[in-house]
Amino acid sequence: MKLKKQEIDLRMSKLQDWQLSGDTIKKEYKFKDFSESMAFVVKIALEAEKVQHHPDMTIEYSRVKIVLTTYSEEGLTSKDFDLAEKIDTFVGA
Amino acid sequence: MKLKKQEIDLRMSKLQDWQLSGDTIKKEYKFKDFSESMAFVVKIALEAEKVQHHPDMTIEYSRVKIVLTTYSEEGLTSKDFDLAEKIDTFVGA
Repeated sequence: MKLKKQEIDLRMSKLQDWQLSGDTIKKEYKFKDFSESMAFVVKIALEAEKVQHHPDMTIEYSRVKIVLTTYSEEGLTSKDFDLAEKIDTFVGA
Repeated sequence: MKLKKQEIDLRMSKLQDWQLSGDTIKKEYKFKDFSESMAFVVKIALEAEKVQHHPDMTIEYSRVKIVLTTYSEEGLTSKDFDLAEKIDTFVGA
């Protein structure tokens, strides 16, 4: 179910460095090199298949950009924020 | 070494469905699902490490966008076209 503005603000306040952009949330991660970027993307891909929710991902050598939204609801849902939190755990504390 | 316009036109004429866009060449591939997109991206990643030339890659569920350029030369080189041809072999005939 699509989240209301108030719910989105609450979930955003618990995220680190994610940006709200229209009906999406996005974040850019920086790694040592391409190999580390790919390791991160593969980890996200496995999680995405497990929870059946798939972010858009862009790999630019040592940079990875993640965009989350729920197309079927045409907006942000708890699935997006749950996955965002999970993705952040993949890069350590 | 950065290719001249004439060399670029020649190499472009041998590629299928790649687009010339400024100092880059790009192509979008369509797959059955996210899992197939990821399999394609991982295959490209392994090749990229082997030849030490790394495309920008965007995964949007069943769509994969590839952009090639040679940053160190600020333009297109034979590395870009060699990798483009190789990438096309990964999706079958």
